[in-house]
Amino acid sequence: MSGKPTFLILADGDFSPMTSKTANSVIRYLPDRVVGVVDRVHAGKTVQQVLGFGGDIPVVGSMAEGLRRKPGAVLIGIAPAGGRLPEEWRAWLAEALETGCDLWSGLHTFLSDDALLAEKARAHGRKILDVRRPPPKLPVAMGMARLVDPFVVLTVGTDCNVGKMTAQLQLVRGLENRGLKTRFAATGQTGIFIEGWGTAVDAVVADFIAGAAEELVLKAAPGADIVLVEGQGSINHPGYSGVTLGLLHGSCPDALILCHQATREFIGEYRGEPWLRIPPLADYVKMYEMIGSAVYPTRVIAVCMNTYDLTDAEALEACAAATRDTGLPCTDPVRFDSAPVLDAVSGARQAYLERRSLK
Amino acid sequence: MSGKPTFLILADGDFSPMTSKTANSVIRYLPDRVVGVVDRVHAGKTVQQVLGFGGDIPVVGSMAEGLRRKPGAVLIGIAPAGGRLPEEWRAWLAEALETGCDLWSGLHTFLSDDALLAEKARAHGRKILDVRRPPPKLPVAMGMARLVDPFVVLTVGTDCNVGKMTAQLQLVRGLENRGLKTRFAATGQTGIFIEGWGTAVDAVVADFIAGAAEELVLKAAPGADIVLVEGQGSINHPGYSGVTLGLLHGSCPDALILCHQATREFIGEYRGEPWLRIPPLADYVKMYEMIGSAVYPTRVIAVCMNTYDLTDAEALEACAAATRDTGLPCTDPVRFDSAPVLDAVSGARQAYLERRSLK
Repeated sequence: MSGKPTFLILADGDFSPMTSKTANSVIRYLPDRVVGVVDRVHAGKTVQQVLGFGGDIPVVGSMAEGLRRKPGAVLIGIAPAGGRLPEEWRAWLAEALETGCDLWSGLHTFLSDDALLAEKARAHGRKILDVRRPPPKLPVAMGMARLVDPFVVLTVGTDCNVGKMTAQLQLVRGLENRGLKTRFAATGQTGIFIEGWGTAVDAVVADFIAGAAEELVLKAAPGADIVLVEGQGSINHPGYSGVTLGLLHGSCPDALILCHQATREFIGEYRGEPWLRIPPLADYVKMYEMIGSAVYPTRVIAVCMNTYDLTDAEALEACAAATRDTGLPCTDPVRFDSAPVLDAVSGARQAYLERRSLK
Repeated sequence: MSGKPTFLILADGDFSPMTSKTANSVIRYLPDRVVGVVDRVHAGKTVQQVLGFGGDIPVVGSMAEGLRRKPGAVLIGIAPAGGRLPEEWRAWLAEALETGCDLWSGLHTFLSDDALLAEKARAHGRKILDVRRPPPKLPVAMGMARLVDPFVVLTVGTDCNVGKMTAQLQLVRGLENRGLKTRFAATGQTGIFIEGWGTAVDAVVADFIAGAAEELVLKAAPGADIVLVEGQGSINHPGYSGVTLGLLHGSCPDALILCHQATREFIGEYRGEPWLRIPPLADYVKMYEMIGSAVYPTRVIAVCMNTYDLTDAEALEACAAATRDTGLPCTDPVRFDSAPVLDAVSGARQAYLERRSLK
């Protein structure tokens, strides 16, 4: 990453609480660095009006209008339908480069491979950061992450897009406040944008998923008390489970935090693919512990519940139900106090340190 | 694939029963198409003398000597140490192109990306086939493979290199002999060389592992009674488990065949990385069934035992022990009659057809 620029976020046509995951997280964690959002649907509103957070950041109706707010970089905040770069976006991004902006992108299609954009960047001395481009030389994992000193915690989920990264970013502050040096190891585009480093493990060649995770943990470990590894996908996601398991085995976590969105009933339903019913949370605990421990002993120590679409009373009941189902502490770390989960992490770390001192 | 050429196999310095997996399998299944093996260590011997099978195929001490046997293509039969193309090989492969040979390779490093080799191929009108290059447009899997008509069987393993592909190639003939139209879906370089089509699932971008498997099953299904999907890695392999799980969830197998090498004690020990002890076979049955069935109901119906380094009596005992441990039929389909496993497959298929007719 090159420095900490301000961002104009491109989220045209898909800016909403559930769909524009990257845009929303960058706004949530770096609000002071976001100068605006480009989206013709909600132009004229504030981000607060669209998302329920984000304050006065304006939504603007064109790239030109956004560029007048002098961002350091244009950041792609949504995945375009079909995964390809829309022709209209190319023109807008070229315009941004001409105006002196860098481009930050986490798309599978690399902007720097686009001849027009590459040429514009060269001509205007700007940078294109494709954070999904894998590092040049990754290892095949060999369980090296099991040997690091810090207590390693991975978030695991019941589906994609349930709040695995958000849960952890909420926990970082709480753990730091307790005097624990905590390092966040980003494994997806949004986490990388926010943290400034990391590897998009879903974009590496399949043989190197675990190796990418191993490398991240080894890099994050020195000097840290706790490493929080950003989880991806779900162990029973028909499309992405391979990434989930590679990450689980490559990072050798000492503990897992299970993340769920309370009202989600089917895998993938947030993008209209209802077919596979999400089993009880206790089943996930069993699956993740069994399959994770097949490489390195691990257990689920807490549940983080995403309750964004519930009332306070419903949210409290969802957390209580998770605790009844699993016997584990549960909270929504965005909505409520994170203490129950922070207690679980620091307690499990204490036990880990005691086990190690006996060796 | 372009036709069915004869092969000169390059296996210099690493030709042996356990290390040169690709060379050995091509020799085992396509002996009539192999004109020689290049290996300076065993030059002058026959393949039979080195591997214990392969008959009179000669091992030669130089590329030039091999090329005099007029192969249609030079096939890379081993992975070079370090994964990179040795400088010496580049010169040999250029020589092969000049002599009118195509090149077939399953290396992660694509030969067609090498400027010298690409230029030689162009100049001499030859083809370079990099079978690990992923297809241009793969889907994210959505469980579509669960909907195909044929009975889908996937081999799963206790480690890499235990005989998952070999077991299945042995079964194809047996099933065909029983009147069942059987399609082999190759997922690795060697299987693709032998079968003439397929996708190397370990070489695709991580998000598309399951999608590549789904696409293979959909392609293999029409007109088949049984689809045998080539397995990869192991569910508890620290480096490759992500590929294994993506393949398991993407192919939606109705049944699994568990493969093991009887004398293997540690994951990866065949390449000198002893650390993680291989658990009992019954634990694998539990893990594969639990995690596989989380997407589509499946069960392990038989065990295939690789007994290449045992006496007949030891091999029989290893199979009997596997049956005691798992309650499942077991054989070494290379060494013994495959009937116990063939019976398990056709019996499970019969039950599957009956279940479907009731729907």
